[in-house]
Amino acid sequence: MGKVFTSQLGEVKTHYFTFGSQEDGLPLDCGRSLGPITVAYQTYGALNSDRSNAILICHALSGDSHVAGINAEDGRLGWWEIMVGPGKAFDTNKYFIICSNVLGGCKGTTGPSSFCPATGKPYALDFPIITIDDMVRVQKRLIEHLGIDRLLSVVGGSMGGMQALAWCQLYPDQVVSAIPIATTARLSAQSLAWDEIGRRAIMADQNWNNGNYYDIGQAKPEKGLAVARMIGHITYLSDEALSSKFGRRLRGRNNYSFSFDIDFEVESYLDHQGVIFNRRFDPNSYLYITRAIDYFDLSQGTGNLTTAFLKIKASLLFISFTSDWLYPPYQSREMVSAAQANNLYVEYLEATSPFGHDAFLLESEQQAPVIEKFLKIL
Amino acid sequence: MGKVFTSQLGEVKTHYFTFGSQEDGLPLDCGRSLGPITVAYQTYGALNSDRSNAILICHALSGDSHVAGINAEDGRLGWWEIMVGPGKAFDTNKYFIICSNVLGGCKGTTGPSSFCPATGKPYALDFPIITIDDMVRVQKRLIEHLGIDRLLSVVGGSMGGMQALAWCQLYPDQVVSAIPIATTARLSAQSLAWDEIGRRAIMADQNWNNGNYYDIGQAKPEKGLAVARMIGHITYLSDEALSSKFGRRLRGRNNYSFSFDIDFEVESYLDHQGVIFNRRFDPNSYLYITRAIDYFDLSQGTGNLTTAFLKIKASLLFISFTSDWLYPPYQSREMVSAAQANNLYVEYLEATSPFGHDAFLLESEQQAPVIEKFLKIL
Repeated sequence: MGKVFTSQLGEVKTHYFTFGSQEDGLPLDCGRSLGPITVAYQTYGALNSDRSNAILICHALSGDSHVAGINAEDGRLGWWEIMVGPGKAFDTNKYFIICSNVLGGCKGTTGPSSFCPATGKPYALDFPIITIDDMVRVQKRLIEHLGIDRLLSVVGGSMGGMQALAWCQLYPDQVVSAIPIATTARLSAQSLAWDEIGRRAIMADQNWNNGNYYDIGQAKPEKGLAVARMIGHITYLSDEALSSKFGRRLRGRNNYSFSFDIDFEVESYLDHQGVIFNRRFDPNSYLYITRAIDYFDLSQGTGNLTTAFLKIKASLLFISFTSDWLYPPYQSREMVSAAQANNLYVEYLEATSPFGHDAFLLESEQQAPVIEKFLKIL
Repeated sequence: MGKVFTSQLGEVKTHYFTFGSQEDGLPLDCGRSLGPITVAYQTYGALNSDRSNAILICHALSGDSHVAGINAEDGRLGWWEIMVGPGKAFDTNKYFIICSNVLGGCKGTTGPSSFCPATGKPYALDFPIITIDDMVRVQKRLIEHLGIDRLLSVVGGSMGGMQALAWCQLYPDQVVSAIPIATTARLSAQSLAWDEIGRRAIMADQNWNNGNYYDIGQAKPEKGLAVARMIGHITYLSDEALSSKFGRRLRGRNNYSFSFDIDFEVESYLDHQGVIFNRRFDPNSYLYITRAIDYFDLSQGTGNLTTAFLKIKASLLFISFTSDWLYPPYQSREMVSAAQANNLYVEYLEATSPFGHDAFLLESEQQAPVIEKFLKIL
C-alpha cells in the first residue's frame, strides 16, 4: 500500500497568490509582459514580529513548492525534507521558510500549460520566453505579498542557486545572505549542449505537435520527454555513482537478450525515470525552464564575474560537490574568488561526495552544519 | 567548390569480398548464422613476400574502410589520414594496411540496410544482433581471403580498440601485437546509459517505423538519429574543448533571440553534426553497432580482467587521453595492469590532450612516435 512517510512538519498545504492582469502584467526580460500570474507556494515555521527570519528556498529544474513535510494533496514528502524542519539546517522553529513553484513551471505557478486569458486555451508556445531574473521578479512579488521586505537568506541548489544569485544582484538591499549550492554563474558550452539536446528530443516527438498537446485524450510527447529526462539523469549522477549503483549488472537475466530490450539494470533505471517523470512534468515547461537556465549569466554577457558581484551586498555561502560534473566545483570557486574580490563576506564548502550533481538533494551531513553556522552569524 | 584535399596516397578504391551463403552462413554469438556477408575494405602499401607486414586498422562507431588517401568515390580524405601514409606512424612504405567496414555497418559491409536474400528486402530489424567478436570473425575471413595468416598488428581507437582486444582473445596465434587506443575492456554504466538514450531517441522518432524506413521516398528517422549523434558528440569532446571552442558565444547575433531557435554557437555546431550525420549513416546501423559496443566485455561477464588476458599472447601498446571521459584513462590503466599480471609485453601512453575521446582522431604528435617505435621492435 505504498510507503509510509513521516515528517515532523506534518501535513503542508499549498497556497496560491495571484497578481497582475492581462492589461497590467509583469514586464519580462523578453520585452513582453505577462498577467495575471498565479504563484503556488508553501510556508513552514512562523514569521517573527520584526519579519526578519524569512528564508526563501528556490527549487531546481523539476522541483516544486513542496520542499518539506507531507503534501496535503498527495501524501508525498518534500524534496528537501533532509534539510528543512524542526532542528534541521533550515530550522522551522527559528526560521520562516518559503518555497514557491517557479514561473514557467507546471506545479501551480503560471506556465505554458496554464490557461491564457486572451485565448481561453493553454498558452503552449504562446507563453513568453522567461529568464531566471523573471522567476525572481515573481518571487519578489510573493515576498511583498507576505509582508516581507528583506529576506534573511535565499537558498537553492542547481537552478535554485541561480535564483539565489539573481536575487542578490536584482535586489541587493532585500537580501541579507544567499546560499547558492551546486550551481554556476553561467552554463558552460557542454551544459548548454545537454539542454539543447533535451529540447530537441521533446520537439522531435510527433506528439509534441508544436507544443499543442493539451486537449483531453490527446497523446503527449512522452517518448521525447523521457529521452530528455534520461539525459538529465546521467548529468545529475557521477560515473562513479552509476558504476557502484548499477555497474554492468543485467536486469532479471543471466545472459544478454540479443535484442534491443532492456538488458542492463542501468537501462531499466533510466526507463523508469522517464516513465515517472512523464506523470509529473509538462514537456513545454521543460523547454521553457531549460531555456531560462541557458540564458542565465550573472556576468550579463560580459564574461566578467568580478563586476557581476559589484552591486551585491549579501553574505554568501557557496557549496559544491567534488563529483558534480554538470556544475563542477571550479565554477563555484570562480564565484568565490569574484565575490572575495568585491570584499564580500564569503564562505565556501567543497563537499566530498560520490553522488554527482544530485548530492545537494541527498547529502546533509556535510551541508547542514555549515549552513546552520552560517545562518547563525547573520 | 569544396575544399582541396591532397594525400600522398592518392586515390584509393574500395574493394568487396563476399563469403558464405544463406544455407552456410557465419555462426554468430546470438545463435543465428548470417550469409552471404559482403565486406567492404581498402588496402594501402604492399604485402611483403613472407606476408608478415600486415596491419589491420579497425574503425570506430561511425567510421568506414576509408582510413586514408582520397576516396575514389567521393574525393574525401580518410578518417585517419594523419596516421596512415608514407612516412607516417602506419608507414605505407613498410606496412600493408587493411581497413574494413564492420559487420552491421552501412558503408559497404553487410548490415541492417543490406538486402536480405530470404525476403528480397532490407534486413531492417530482421538483422541479427551482432557483437564485437562477430565483427572480428568477419575480419578474420577477410584476412584469410587476402592470404594472411598472422597480423603484425591490430589497431583501433574507441570501438576499433575493442576489436583489437577481441582479436587478441579470439585468435591469440594470429596476432603479433595490438594497439588499443582510447578504449575500454567494457563499458561503464554511464556509457551504457548514453548508448541506450541514443537508441531511444532513434526509436522514438515516428519515422523509424520499427526499423522499416527503406522504401524509396520514405522519410527516415532523421530527428532521432540527429539527437543520438548530438549526445555522442558531447561524449566525444571534453568540457574544456567545448568551452574553448564555443564558450557561450552567440551565433550571428548580439542578444538572445528569446525563442527556441539556435542562439548559441554550440547549438549550431550540434545541429550541423546532426544534419551531416544523417547524410552518411543508417539509423538501424546505429542501433546494432551501439548494442555490440554495450555487449563487449573482455572479461566475458566475470568482471575479472586478469583472467581475460590469460589466453592473450600479443604485445600490447595502450594509448589513452587525459580528457577522455567516455573511456577514461583509468580504464586503460586497468587493462595495462591486467596484461602485466599475465607477463605480457605492455607499453602505455597516457597522452595529455584537451580534445577528449576524439583526441585519437586528431592527435598525432604524441601517438605517432610511440606507435612507430612499438612497431619497430616487433
